[in-house]
Parts: sequence; C-alpha cells; structure tokens
Amino acid sequence: MRDFIFENRTKIIFGRNTEKYVGPEAIKYGKKALLHYGGGSIKKIGVYNKIIDSLKTAGIDITELGGVVPNPRLDLVYKGIELVKENNIDIIIAVGGGSVIDSAKAIAIGACYDGDVWDFFSGKADAEKALPVATVLTIPAAGSESSNSSVITNSDGKLKRGYTNNVITPVFSILNPENTYSLPPYQIACGAADILAHLMERYFVNVELVDLTDRLIEGAMQNIIKFAPLAIENPENYDIRAEVMWVGTVAHNNLLDTGRGGDWASHGIEHELSGIYDIAHGAGLAIVFPAWMKYVKTLNPFKLVQFGQRVFGITDKSNDETIDIAIQKLEDFFHSIGLATRLSDINIDDTYFDEMAEKAVSKNKNSTIGSYVKLDFDAVKEIYQLAL
Amino acid sequence: MRDFIFENRTKIIFGRNTEKYVGPEAIKYGKKALLHYGGGSIKKIGVYNKIIDSLKTAGIDITELGGVVPNPRLDLVYKGIELVKENNIDIIIAVGGGSVIDSAKAIAIGACYDGDVWDFFSGKADAEKALPVATVLTIPAAGSESSNSSVITNSDGKLKRGYTNNVITPVFSILNPENTYSLPPYQIACGAADILAHLMERYFVNVELVDLTDRLIEGAMQNIIKFAPLAIENPENYDIRAEVMWVGTVAHNNLLDTGRGGDWASHGIEHELSGIYDIAHGAGLAIVFPAWMKYVKTLNPFKLVQFGQRVFGITDKSNDETIDIAIQKLEDFFHSIGLATRLSDINIDDTYFDEMAEKAVSKNKNSTIGSYVKLDFDAVKEIYQLAL
Repeated sequence: MRDFIFENRTKIIFGRNTEKYVGPEAIKYGKKALLHYGGGSIKKIGVYNKIIDSLKTAGIDITELGGVVPNPRLDLVYKGIELVKENNIDIIIAVGGGSVIDSAKAIAIGACYDGDVWDFFSGKADAEKALPVATVLTIPAAGSESSNSSVITNSDGKLKRGYTNNVITPVFSILNPENTYSLPPYQIACGAADILAHLMERYFVNVELVDLTDRLIEGAMQNIIKFAPLAIENPENYDIRAEVMWVGTVAHNNLLDTGRGGDWASHGIEHELSGIYDIAHGAGLAIVFPAWMKYVKTLNPFKLVQFGQRVFGITDKSNDETIDIAIQKLEDFFHSIGLATRLSDINIDDTYFDEMAEKAVSKNKNSTIGSYVKLDFDAVKEIYQLAL
Repeated sequence: MRDFIFENRTKIIFGRNTEKYVGPEAIKYGKKALLHYGGGSIKKIGVYNKIIDSLKTAGIDITELGGVVPNPRLDLVYKGIELVKENNIDIIIAVGGGSVIDSAKAIAIGACYDGDVWDFFSGKADAEKALPVATVLTIPAAGSESSNSSVITNSDGKLKRGYTNNVITPVFSILNPENTYSLPPYQIACGAADILAHLMERYFVNVELVDLTDRLIEGAMQNIIKFAPLAIENPENYDIRAEVMWVGTVAHNNLLDTGRGGDWASHGIEHELSGIYDIAHGAGLAIVFPAWMKYVKTLNPFKLVQFGQRVFGITDKSNDETIDIAIQKLEDFFHSIGLATRLSDINIDDTYFDEMAEKAVSKNKNSTIGSYVKLDFDAVKEIYQLAL
C-alpha cells in the first residue's frame, strides 16, 4: 500500500425532501448566495422552487446564474466570477449534475484569484482559497458533489482540462433520489458509465496488496452494474435510484483510491473525444474503456483477470479467456443500458485521432498518460483505433 | 435505503514516518497541546520521541498525561480536564489505541463544559463544543481515530457508557503501520475482533435494499478475516499491517452505515461484560457475537444467510445449514487468531448475568437493545447463557 493523505469534508444530506436543508446549511457560510444551474429542468421537477423557498426562509439573498451546458464552458465561469465579485457572494450553490457543480467550483476559485481562472486548469497556478461550494445533486454521475476536482472546457469548445484541489470540495451536498426520477434513460446510462469508469480508473493500478480497496471497489462495481439497468427500467423506484445516486458519490470521494491512486488514462483519452465532438462524457467512456482494456490486456493482464473473476464471477477459464469474457460482459453491460461501445456507432471516424492523441499525452510532461500501463502518443492513437 | 446525514472531517495521514506531520498539523489549532497516552509502550517503540520532536520543532508547548488503561476510566478524564483548564490547552493529541483516544475525546468535551463530563455519557446533557482532538494510532481496533464516539468506564470500574457526537471526531489522525509491529499477537487478535464486530454491527440490519453498503461491508469483512491471521504470523510485514490498520478505520468512520444504521446489541452486551470483568473489548465481542447469532438466527435469518453466502462463500447449502456453517466459520476465525468463543473458556460463569442483562437493556428507554432483533432482558440473558 502506498502512503496517502485522505480527507473529505463534504457533509452529505441524503433522502426525501432534503432540499429544505439548503437554507439552514447555507446560512452558516453567509447571507449572499449565487444559485448556479443549467437549463430549465430543475424548474420543471420542482426542485428550484423548493430551494428558493428554503434559501428565502433562511434570509439568504439570491443571485442566479443559469445556462451551464454539458462540458461546462469557461465563458460562463468568467461571467459567474464577475457576478460573485459584484454581489459579494458568500457561497455558491450548484443545482444540477457534474457540469453545473464543476462550473461552480471554477467560479469559486476564480473569484478568489486576481489572475485568469484558466491558469489553474492549464497548470500555471495553484489555488490557495475558494468560496464555499454547496450542491443539490440532480444527476448521479460525475461524483463532483463530494470530489475535489473540476473539469472545464475552454470556450473555443475543444480544450477540456481538469483541476484538483481540496479547496473546491463542496462543504455540503444534498442528495434526493426523487430528483433523478425524470432524467431521460440515456442520461442515467451515461451517468452509470461515468460512475463505473470512476471505479475502474481506481481499480486498475499496479500497487500490490491493496486488498481492502480492491474489495470495496469490486463491491461498488457490482452495485452499479446491477442497479443501472434497474434504474432505467424503474425510474420512480426510490430505493433503486438511491443505490445509483449513492454509489456515484462513493465512487469518486477519494476513499476508494487511498493507498493506490488510479490510472486515469481512459478519462484523458475520453476528454479529448468529448472536447472535440461534444458527446456526453459517460457515452465516451463506454467506448474508450473496452478499447483501453483490449490494448493493455497483453501488456499487464493481472488486474483484468481479477476483475473478471471477482466482478463478473468468471472462475473456470484461463486468464486470457477470463479477460476476453470480462471485456465482452462490460460491453454487454453498456449495451444493456443503451450505450454504444464503438466510435463508428456514433459516427466518429479517425479524422482527429492524431490531434486527440497528441493533446491527450501532451498534458503530461513525460508525454505519457496512465499508470497501469503508461501510454504514449502511439498507444493512445491505437486505443482510438481499437475503439472504431 | 434510509435517509441519512454523513460527514467525517478527519484528515488521515497514512504511511511510514508520518509522525513528522504531528507538529505541522497540530500548530494549525494552537500552541499548547496535551499529549495523552497509556503506559510506556509508546516510549519503547520510539513513537513518543518522534512526536515530541515534531511538536517541539513546530513550537508547541507540551503538557503530558499518561496512564490511560484499557476500558479508560473517568478518574483520569477528570484529571485531564483539570490539566487542560490549568494550561489553556488548544489541542489534545492522543497517542495509542481506542482507550487513549476515547479518553482524549472525553477530556475534549469535559473541558468545554461547566458540569460533570459524565453527564454526556449518562444521557443527561449533550455537548455543544469540544477542543480539537488529534491522534497517532498505535493499535488497529476501535476505529476511534476517525469516529464520533467515545466509551468511558465510570471510576468504580463497573459502568461503561458510550457517547456519540460529531464534535469529538478527530481533526487529524496519523496512521503508521510500523507502530503496530511490536503489539502482542493477543492485542492484534482483540483488535481484529473489534474491527470485524464494527462491520457486523452495521451489516445486520433489517433495512431492505442497501446493496452498496452490504457489498462494501462484505468486502471489508473478507479483508479482516483474511489479514488478521496474516498480521499475527507476519508482525513486521508493512503491507499486511497496513491492511489491518486501514480496515479498522474504514470499519468505523460511519460511511458503511449510511442509509442503514446498525444493530449494536452485541456491543451493548459486551460492554457489560468488560465493564464488570475488565476483559479486552475485542475478546468479549468474539464470545458475544456467535452467541448473538445463535439467538437471532431463527427469529430473523435473512441477513445471516447472505453473510454465509457472500462472506464465507457457502453457496450449496440450505439456509439453516448456511447459517450454522457461517457461525462455525466465524468461531473458527476467532480461534485461529487465539481468541476464545465461550465465557467458560475465560473463567466467567453466570454470577452476574442478571445484573449485566439488566444494565444492558436499561440504557434504552424501551428496555430493549438492537434493531435486527429487538432484545429485552430475557433475550440478553439467554445470549449470555448461549455464550457460556
């Protein structure tokens, strides 16, 4: 096991009608809140009104900024930073999924910094402080409601970069599974792919003897594989939606990578895809991860065998067969929730493979990504090819 | 899944040589520390000197209070409260296992309260604030290094009571598996029994559809069952000791009971045992838990069957057989690490069964304990009988 530091301050308030806690919790941080959200869905499902009521009852002044889109844009972050400064905002409350929360986190650090907030995402600066961010989660997927990271897309739409710092970990997050009932099946599917990918990124490491976290991750993987299809079939079953919502948070709150870290190559490879094509992050991951497995399986099979044995219960096959069956079962899972596992299925060809592979590896000074297998330009390009 | 609130603020610093972080972390809370510990073992293993060095380098004034015993006593807590007040202590640093940490927590709330600190443990008052508590863990067992609870024994030695409040959750905890190398095998065994018991208490609940936490707990149970014997056989194997140390924290940081709560009857039944006989808590749990299972198995078999199937891999038997084999395997595990599973093996007879059963149930206004099966006086007494 590797040395590690683990802390996660987010107070999770989970259950029905928990929106009523937004005001009483937020007022602990001040009287002026920026309410940040996406399109109109939070108004349709009623959560917007519940939050406004709770904030007003608590005596909180509300400034609003809607309009966050999937793969949240830097332009809106700049606008949020201006609003925060103009209105002396004390706390940013993100209502939505990972894109809204990530946008709120970027605003939170940008508002406490004299330079360009993109400096943090481009690696030019490190944030020392942030406004408190709180969330009311409506999409189980990104895990951003309890994570220390944010992913923002530069406003030309083609450069997507992440930033990680404990100062942006939300101070509290409100999770009411009922707020996910009206999500389209495709969005639940993309969320499930993201959740499973967060678990797989942490699972595929070379660190030996990390049995506890191996087993915790395996349990969480079995959970999302079982409950994602059920959540699509039963959109208003509270308990099923609760399973998917809670595993999404646990998958990404950093407990599961204690002492082991993660690989994160597939996320990097996917970020270039969704940066260029603006596809849903989860949809991209469902395509990239099986291709990544096909590339690494001969170079470093050991954890893939354990994955097949423990997560899919394949116990009577050779190692090679176990891996191949596991990859097939992973693809079957993605298909079962309506996701494609090939680029060609979503009309993406090899036009930008060189550009994407170049961008993916150039983020790292060694020009490789990943830890389970270190991937250079050629390797990343081959993974895009395997995904065709 | 039940509604829940989860938060855990403890910053965990895990790894070799991590004692050097005590000073830099503690100074964030002030310049005057109370160093609280047990007997001389922390001096023998060298951790005491490392901590003193780190605190002095950080410019921290140290007041010392040693002498904590297993089942920590109220007398010493009173003494600690006086010391804290006399010396205007800013932070209490507990170096040791659960007893030392629980004693520190009691001092931390007692020092911020005008009344008798026992009021919290006897249910007469609730703490509003506490001094920050930090820990350097040397015994993997109680999970107190990242929990919000403390168990103190009244100074006549026969009344043991717990108190739970987020204000006593440690602010940081330093976990270096090397500090466990010199623990006697019996202490590792008792610690492992405590860790497994913390997992079982959370596992055996009636709440339906808590699949994620079921699976996380099952993984953690498999981990401690595998690594406790290995830790005894290989006292200086860092990775093995690291597994046992980390699962001990994860077992009791409250993530694993989110949405489900726990049973906690066996802990209550054991507390009366170790309150009267001053046996190690873990040794008592190894005796009480199998007896508790034998009592509840006909009244509420469902989770016991799942326990047998998933934790011990018993898949080809009837439900009744699965349960009986699982209880036998649990007892075999305790025997394998040198623990008794019968009261008669440690020379305890039925002399105090009435008194202990009465005390165990009288803590609750309904005069029952447990949730998986509610146990009244007669039931608790029968469990003591089954443990003979």
